[in-house]
Amino acid sequence: MGVLKLHGHPYSGATLRVLSVLHEKGLEFEFVPIDLATGEHKKEHFLSLNPFGQVPAFEDGEIKMFESRAITQYLAHAYADRGTELLFKETKKMAEMSVWAEVEAQKFDPPAFKVVFELILKPMIGGGAADEATVAEQQAALSKVLDVYEARLAGSSYLSGDSFGLADAHHQPLAAFDSRPYVSRWAADILSRPAWVNALAQQSNAP
Amino acid sequence: MGVLKLHGHPYSGATLRVLSVLHEKGLEFEFVPIDLATGEHKKEHFLSLNPFGQVPAFEDGEIKMFESRAITQYLAHAYADRGTELLFKETKKMAEMSVWAEVEAQKFDPPAFKVVFELILKPMIGGGAADEATVAEQQAALSKVLDVYEARLAGSSYLSGDSFGLADAHHQPLAAFDSRPYVSRWAADILSRPAWVNALAQQSNAP
Repeated sequence: MGVLKLHGHPYSGATLRVLSVLHEKGLEFEFVPIDLATGEHKKEHFLSLNPFGQVPAFEDGEIKMFESRAITQYLAHAYADRGTELLFKETKKMAEMSVWAEVEAQKFDPPAFKVVFELILKPMIGGGAADEATVAEQQAALSKVLDVYEARLAGSSYLSGDSFGLADAHHQPLAAFDSRPYVSRWAADILSRPAWVNALAQQSNAP
Repeated sequence: MGVLKLHGHPYSGATLRVLSVLHEKGLEFEFVPIDLATGEHKKEHFLSLNPFGQVPAFEDGEIKMFESRAITQYLAHAYADRGTELLFKETKKMAEMSVWAEVEAQKFDPPAFKVVFELILKPMIGGGAADEATVAEQQAALSKVLDVYEARLAGSSYLSGDSFGLADAHHQPLAAFDSRPYVSRWAADILSRPAWVNALAQQSNAP
C-alpha cells in the first residue's frame, strides 16, 4: 500500500462518503481539493483519474480508483485490520450486508439525491426554484423505501446487521431524520459517528 | 451451502443477470418462476423474500438474498472455486474491477434501462408509444458513457480487466452492438458466452 490521496470536494456527498470511511479506518491521507466552480473536474489532469469527470477520485500508491462505493469497498477490504471493522467475516452476515449496500445504491440514493438536488443544491447553484412535481414524485418513491427500512430497522440495529457496517456508511451523505421511529434512531446514530463528524469538518476548508 | 433457488422471471434483466452467473459457476439450482402478469411479486409469500416486491430473489439454504448484483457478488465469492473465476485475486486488479462494476450500476444501467423501457418494454406491456424526448435524452447520456467504454476497451479486453469478470457479466442484460468498434467487439464477446445463451434459453419456459 502506498500514500493515500483523495481528490474531491467536501460539498460532494460521494466525497464525504469516502472521507467518512477513511476516518472510520483511522487512515492517514492527503485531501486534494478539486475546484468544481472552475470546472477543474472536467480538465485533463482530473479526467486521467476519472474519465467521467466526477469527484471523488482516489489513489493508494499505484492503485487508482473512482466511484465512491468502489473506493469504500476497497478500503474496507484492503485495510480490514485497521480501525472500525466495516465487513462481516461470517458468510451469511456478509451476504445480508451486500443486499442492503445494493439497496442504498439502487433504491435509496436515486430518489433521495433528486429530492436534495431540487430543494437544496439547485437553488444553491443558481438553478432556480425546486420543481414541485419532481419533489413530490421522488418523495413518494423515497417514502416507500423508508417504509421497508423501518421494518428492517425494527428487527436489526443497523441496515448492515447487528453492528455498523459499510451499508450504513454508504447512507451517511443523504441520511436524514424522519418521522419513522426506527429510521430516525438509525439516522441519529450513524450521523453522530465521529468519523462522519470529521468528514463534515472538511467543509470548513472548502475552496 | 444448501439448495440453490432462484425466484424470478426470464424476461427480467435482473433475473437473467443472476441466471448467467449461476451458469458461469456451473451450479445446480432450482428456477422458481414468478408470474409478474398476475402480480405474484407483490404478494405476501414473495414479499417475504424481497420486501421491495421485485424479481429476482435467491436462496442458498438459510441464506436469503435479493438485489441481483448482491446475489452475483455472493455467488462469485462463495463459489470462488467453481466454474469461471469471476473475481481477481490480485488487489490492484480487484480494485479496478470494482470500479467498473460500480460504473455499470451508476452510469450505464440507468440510461440503458430507460432507453430499453421506452422502445421495447413500454409497447410490450401496452404502455403506448415511446416518449421521444426521453429516448433522445437517455440515448445522449448513454452515448457519453459508451465513449468512455470505448477508450477503456481499446486498452483492455474486458471492462473487468484482461479477462471476463463480474463487471462484464453485470452488463449482459443490456449490452448491445454499437458503432464503436471496441464496444461492439466486447458486446459480441460477452453475449456469445454459453452461460448467457443458457440464461436466455430460460425464456422459452416463461409463464
